[in-house]
Amino acid sequence: MDIGELREKIRDVPDFPKKGILFKDITPLLADGKALRKAIDQIGKRFSDRKIDLVIGVEARGFIIAAALAYKLRAGTTLIRKPGKLPYKTHSATYALEYGSDALEIHQDAVLPGQRILVVDDLLATGGTMTAALDLIARLGGVVVGVAFLVELSFLEGRARLKGHEVFSLIQF
Amino acid sequence: MDIGELREKIRDVPDFPKKGILFKDITPLLADGKALRKAIDQIGKRFSDRKIDLVIGVEARGFIIAAALAYKLRAGTTLIRKPGKLPYKTHSATYALEYGSDALEIHQDAVLPGQRILVVDDLLATGGTMTAALDLIARLGGVVVGVAFLVELSFLEGRARLKGHEVFSLIQF
Repeated sequence: MDIGELREKIRDVPDFPKKGILFKDITPLLADGKALRKAIDQIGKRFSDRKIDLVIGVEARGFIIAAALAYKLRAGTTLIRKPGKLPYKTHSATYALEYGSDALEIHQDAVLPGQRILVVDDLLATGGTMTAALDLIARLGGVVVGVAFLVELSFLEGRARLKGHEVFSLIQF
Repeated sequence: MDIGELREKIRDVPDFPKKGILFKDITPLLADGKALRKAIDQIGKRFSDRKIDLVIGVEARGFIIAAALAYKLRAGTTLIRKPGKLPYKTHSATYALEYGSDALEIHQDAVLPGQRILVVDDLLATGGTMTAALDLIARLGGVVVGVAFLVELSFLEGRARLKGHEVFSLIQF
């Protein structure tokens, strides 16, 4: 199975989450065991010699990529979540949305200073969410080794906002 | 690392999500690469000869267990989510909470009739969420081979509500 075949397993859903948005639905790819394995192996290969301590995923689809990659890379995983979801003491970072703003939280002890981190999400769009996630990890003293996405919407130029980081995406639109 | 050591990596957080609840926080276990690997390997071993097609996780911590197990078992994964989160056509199941009710959704094409399913979540409490998840999978014709949890709160007797299914939990309280 090559990257082209993985790409074909991503489904366009029009008008989700609201009218005018063409949503890239990764669930057909995730549901195919061979495709899931190929995707995780390809991302993992890129970072396999980088001594990753923690793969951090952003709620909620990011958890899927993070957990499978953590298993593959023999790393741990930790969670960046929406406000109020994490039980222990947290740090918070806000980020702008098209209208208004949202926030992300991380446990204050989720990352030890100097730990080597791979940050992942399912999809890179404008990069706003990932920027907030990177801010949280930096505050805890984590060393971000790379940022990886299953899918990148290149035309939204989110990569420009992640300057200074090694950014990898498996599938581009 | 044995099960007792995994158990020690689960942290009690008092009064979360509300006063009087002692929350079992699995994040220290997930963050430890050796512990995460051991946990997934132990659950996976139990189902490794059962020809699992799909590991299904319940939002959101369930996704972590499901994705790592799917990778290990060379299966796919699919998502059961809170209402409004899935982009494609869905089925919905409601379940009772202490006050009021909540609902879960699954994509209508998430499971093919006859597919062999392992359903997972991080924690078994009263079993209400898992009962709704099993209802959704049954409606799509999935064959539930087993139900697995990282943690089981045995004193809540949720296992009794999952009668007729093979239920496995790694750590009990």
